[in-house]
Amino acid sequence: MGATSHSQAPLDRQGLEVLPLQECMRLLGRVPVGRVAFVSRGEVVVVPVNHARDGSAVVFRTGEGAIQSAAARRHVVSFEVDDYDVEQRTGWSVLLKGTLDLVTDEAEVDRLREHGLHPWADATGRPHWVRMTPTTVSGRRIPAR
Amino acid sequence: MGATSHSQAPLDRQGLEVLPLQECMRLLGRVPVGRVAFVSRGEVVVVPVNHARDGSAVVFRTGEGAIQSAAARRHVVSFEVDDYDVEQRTGWSVLLKGTLDLVTDEAEVDRLREHGLHPWADATGRPHWVRMTPTTVSGRRIPAR
Repeated sequence: MGATSHSQAPLDRQGLEVLPLQECMRLLGRVPVGRVAFVSRGEVVVVPVNHARDGSAVVFRTGEGAIQSAAARRHVVSFEVDDYDVEQRTGWSVLLKGTLDLVTDEAEVDRLREHGLHPWADATGRPHWVRMTPTTVSGRRIPAR
Repeated sequence: MGATSHSQAPLDRQGLEVLPLQECMRLLGRVPVGRVAFVSRGEVVVVPVNHARDGSAVVFRTGEGAIQSAAARRHVVSFEVDDYDVEQRTGWSVLLKGTLDLVTDEAEVDRLREHGLHPWADATGRPHWVRMTPTTVSGRRIPAR
């Protein structure tokens, strides 16, 4: 959790602090797990992944399956990160919406490897690199009391 | 994190342990924050909430907005909970899919109040109780090394 209180931040109609873009992107790079959310066969699927921030995009690795398929078809997906503090009864979340695609260029994959992204779930090797390029980014934080 | 290793659990094609329903429901009740995921205006929205498990359903409170609207229309949504351990490089996630509805019966709301569910984000009071009744529940865990 960020201990800093942003008492100057504007509030949305739910009374939550609206986080600036720069703060959203900083938080995106601070947590080791995010969640890809997308529609598959008419239902919303949410899948946690180990990700890295790559500039203003998110990259992660995947095996064969629904995410690889969605990336190959350049589907629009969402990516969510959050963190919370039970004792302080607070938390924040950041939601990105954008397009998923497979990174197939070898030089680009070599560059992404420098992020040192080693998924915890590695039984299948997760050979495919996927990038989510956001078109919208929004973030909220429960204000300090 | 559950420290117990379920080495007998079946694995999916990604090499993740497939959690039994009973374990999914137990984990659902063990974390204070879950994420409602639904389609709004053609995009997937993911919103963290403080929830409680109520039997085989999930309940939480909301104010005016997209979730209340989705509940009033009995939309199909997903609900995700997870937890992870950075040092052990492991984690689990549970995904429920089902129908959202507003709980308007006063006796039922009184009963739900006994869960002692007090959302951390409480600036607007969150007067509406919402129930998500799952039709499918699935869970995965990264196997212990």
